[in-house]
Amino acid sequence: MNTPQQAPELQVAQWFNSPEPITLAALHGKVVVIEAFQMLCPGCVAHGLPQVQKLRRVFPEEHVVVLGLHTVFEHHAAMTPVALEAFLHEYKIRFPVGVDAPAEIGPIPRTMAAYGMRGTPSLLLIDRAGRLREHHFGQVEDMALGAQVALLLGECGDDSATA
Amino acid sequence: MNTPQQAPELQVAQWFNSPEPITLAALHGKVVVIEAFQMLCPGCVAHGLPQVQKLRRVFPEEHVVVLGLHTVFEHHAAMTPVALEAFLHEYKIRFPVGVDAPAEIGPIPRTMAAYGMRGTPSLLLIDRAGRLREHHFGQVEDMALGAQVALLLGECGDDSATA
Amino acid sequence: MNTPQQAPELQVAQWFNSPEPITLAALHGKVVVIEAFQMLCPGCVAHGLPQVQKLRRVFPEEHVVVLGLHTVFEHHAAMTPVALEAFLHEYKIRFPVGVDAPAEIGPIPRTMAAYGMRGTPSLLLIDRAGRLREHHFGQVEDMALGAQVALLLGECGDDSATA
Amino acid sequence: MNTPQQAPELQVAQWFNSPEPITLAALHGKVVVIEAFQMLCPGCVAHGLPQVQKLRRVFPEEHVVVLGLHTVFEHHAAMTPVALEAFLHEYKIRFPVGVDAPAEIGPIPRTMAAYGMRGTPSLLLIDRAGRLREHHFGQVEDMALGAQVALLLGECGDDSATA
Repeated sequence: MNTPQQAPELQVAQWFNSPEPITLAALHGKVVVIEAFQMLCPGCVAHGLPQVQKLRRVFPEEHVVVLGLHTVFEHHAAMTPVALEAFLHEYKIRFPVGVDAPAEIGPIPRTMAAYGMRGTPSLLLIDRAGRLREHHFGQVEDMALGAQVALLLGECGDDSATA
Repeated sequence: MNTPQQAPELQVAQWFNSPEPITLAALHGKVVVIEAFQMLCPGCVAHGLPQVQKLRRVFPEEHVVVLGLHTVFEHHAAMTPVALEAFLHEYKIRFPVGVDAPAEIGPIPRTMAAYGMRGTPSLLLIDRAGRLREHHFGQVEDMALGAQVALLLGECGDDSATA
Repeated sequence: MNTPQQAPELQVAQWFNSPEPITLAALHGKVVVIEAFQMLCPGCVAHGLPQVQKLRRVFPEEHVVVLGLHTVFEHHAAMTPVALEAFLHEYKIRFPVGVDAPAEIGPIPRTMAAYGMRGTPSLLLIDRAGRLREHHFGQVEDMALGAQVALLLGECGDDSATA
Repeated sequence: MNTPQQAPELQVAQWFNSPEPITLAALHGKVVVIEAFQMLCPGCVAHGLPQVQKLRRVFPEEHVVVLGLHTVFEHHAAMTPVALEAFLHEYKIRFPVGVDAPAEIGPIPRTMAAYGMRGTPSLLLIDRAGRLREHHFGQVEDMALGAQVALLLGECGDDSATA
């Protein structure tokens, strides 16, 4: 297996459910779970988003941060920030959600491109040292995800593990 | 129980999945099932729409017509026809869907008002003689719905029953 | 499609949830639904039995009779009447359940053989005139089953239809 | 929270799916998950047993041992070892299952009594040092269970933590 790499910083045009912009840099020391989704993606609505809402309930907020990332790469006219805001309200999504910043050229937004995501839903797990440790595309089993997050929680946050 | 009333005609601004406008008048002689929904209504997405997709598979097209009606009464800026078109594509909804015509005043669209719907999802069953026979708000059990549609199918389409 | 045949009479060694033996002959004029199951058949426990419990709730008792038939064709030492009685209690099955009478030779009980059932769960629908109208093996969709029962309910019980 | 206690040894009359008797003592160094169930307990069949079958798939066999324990405390005549063997076959349960040894007096079997279980399903998590760390009665969420097992997996097996 490859050595885990530092997770690229988020590039977000606008945040919902957060009083101020969020950066991965500022979350150093915590485990970060990022659900990359599109509001009109059936698998995101049926599985991905309910799963991270459950994850938000199961793990303590002071150690595990849950973020949504609206990575729109198709139907851009339909999935606007105005539509996303209504969606978050109706689906009772309370954790912070960022709008992935559009690229200058092409339909793939910036953070999605930086992580090389293959589509939605994509789930990223970032460890306390800021390294990308899991990158799932599609459905993940609750039990396996719970185990992966718990393993990252059990690690200490300094970089000694790789020293 | 009240005598069933003639179902008010649909007032639709735009149709998807249909080459031309659809009227209840022209469907006389068939059983018509109308799923009134909003694309950002969680109960519609999780239950109402999958249920009428199943109904479309179970009953023969020549006798049972399934229609969707996008009755937007909130978040109008989010649930535009452009957004609806993307939604229908992503959720593989192939039966005709009409956009309920906006009222001159107020958020409730015209057909929704004419039927006195209480919200979404609402499910209407119209018999072969064009009369409104069932009007459900919220979730209905598959088995009970299958039975109700079958009972209407078994009736003949003339008005003799009420003569 | 073949002309429906008269449903063979039940051959039952013992009844649960019924003060006296039940015969199809005595149920003439009603629609009869028979769920043939084994208490250790996973598909029966997960789908077949809950489905007929739902059917019992949806349709009126005075017109639709729901019966269980314990058609044990394997693991006979495990699925005894004593075990069945505990099973019915734990799973809160309140409708009448008959123990299909063992054959003189071989593992297939008598009613199961008379109907030519292929395994469990099997679902039989018998019309008001006592004729076998549906014979399903395996899982059936709630909506389709609700429609089939409703269609039989709508028929009158004399034999005029076949005269 | 209390200091975790050494888990009482299993008292088993008969094992299925194991060539020889299993003791907790011999499993020292591994995480042990015990699903206490009754074959006629609906919650065990619908939730508890499928959950530990999933757990068996998600975690590696060399570190996590999954055991079933048939803790019959009612309907003893129905839930015999012969019936259990057929049940395990039909439900494709492949991990070792022990029959909790009957008590000399009363309906509660020995291991069930030693752990003070309140009913079925009960789920026990035992750490690498042989201590009882979790004791659930009823349904547990997959995600939380996955996390709990992973946390125990991350611990080392000696007793230094309590020294």
